[in-house]
Amino acid sequence: MKFYERTKKVDEIFKGKMIQLHVETVELPDGREATREVVRHPGAVAVLPLTEDGRLIVVEQFRKALDRSIIEIPAGKLEAGEAPLACAIRELKEETGYSSDEISYLVSFSTSPGFADEIIHLYLAQNCKPGKNHLDEDEFLDLMLISKEEAYQMIANQQIYDAKTILAIYYWDLLSKRD
Amino acid sequence: MKFYERTKKVDEIFKGKMIQLHVETVELPDGREATREVVRHPGAVAVLPLTEDGRLIVVEQFRKALDRSIIEIPAGKLEAGEAPLACAIRELKEETGYSSDEISYLVSFSTSPGFADEIIHLYLAQNCKPGKNHLDEDEFLDLMLISKEEAYQMIANQQIYDAKTILAIYYWDLLSKRD
Repeated sequence: MKFYERTKKVDEIFKGKMIQLHVETVELPDGREATREVVRHPGAVAVLPLTEDGRLIVVEQFRKALDRSIIEIPAGKLEAGEAPLACAIRELKEETGYSSDEISYLVSFSTSPGFADEIIHLYLAQNCKPGKNHLDEDEFLDLMLISKEEAYQMIANQQIYDAKTILAIYYWDLLSKRD
Repeated sequence: MKFYERTKKVDEIFKGKMIQLHVETVELPDGREATREVVRHPGAVAVLPLTEDGRLIVVEQFRKALDRSIIEIPAGKLEAGEAPLACAIRELKEETGYSSDEISYLVSFSTSPGFADEIIHLYLAQNCKPGKNHLDEDEFLDLMLISKEEAYQMIANQQIYDAKTILAIYYWDLLSKRD
C-alpha cells in the first residue's frame, strides 16, 4: 500500500471507558523511524432523523471536551458486537424517543484520521414518529425539531458545531435539491 | 449553561507531539460524579481548493490511525499563535504547491466532540494556481485533481473516508447548485 508505515513497536499508554491511547513507533517509507499517537475508539453511528413534516430531530448536550453544550444529530458509540444499523435504531430511540420504518445507510467516515481510529456510520431515518426516550444514566439532553433554515442559522452561530452534524445537514440540503 | 459539568479534578495522563490526554472528574447536573476522557489537540485548518478549471485538489496520504492511505483535502495543524487563515495558505502551499488569491472562510467544526477538543477551520480557495510544494520531513503524499463525479465515486468506494473531506465535497456540490 502506498506510503505504508510499518509498526515496529506499540506502547499502550492508557485504557479508559471510551478510548485507548497507543504510541506506535513506525518505519517511514524512506526507512527512518517516527512515532504516531493513536487514539483507539469503538466507533459510532449517527442518524439524520427527519419527521413526517420534514423537520430535523436534534439534541442539545454538554460536551466536556469543548466545555460547552452543542446541538447535534443523535449519535452514540457501538456496543461490543453490535451491528451499526441496530445501533442507529437504538440510539435514535434512546436519545429522542423517535423511531422510523425507513432507515437507510448513507456513508461512513473517520472523524480525525490524524490521531484517532473512530469511524462514524451515518444513517438517514425518514418519517420518524415520536415515542418515549430512555437516556443513559449519565446522559442529559434536550430535544429540538428544526427546519433547514434553522439548521443553517445554528451552523452560522456555532450552536451546531460538529463535523458529523454539519455533514448531515449538507446531505439533507442536497437531498432536497436532488428531488 | 445548560447541563454544565463542573470539573473537580484533572489527571494529565499523556503529553505527546500532537495530542495530550486528560481524564477529568466532573460533577453531573444531578450532583453525581463522572469521569470524562478528553484528548487535547492544537486545532487545524482544512482547505477546499478548486483549480481554475473547476477540479478539486486532493492529497493521498497514509494515516496510521486507520492503517491505510486515504484521499483528503489539504489540511494541517495550527502552529502556536498561528492565525487560521495564515495556516490555510501555508498548508495549501506546503502540501500541494498551489496558491490562491481568493481564499474565504467557510465554517469551523469539532471533529469528535465526545472525546476531543480538535476544531477544524475550513476555507474555500478558488482559482488555485500550481507551484512547487514543500512537505514536512515525515510527510509523504500524492497529489490529485478530481472532478465532482470522481469525488463522489471516491466517497462511495471509501478512498475518501474522512468527515472534513466529505463535508467539504458536499459544500462544493451545494455551491454549484446555488449558482
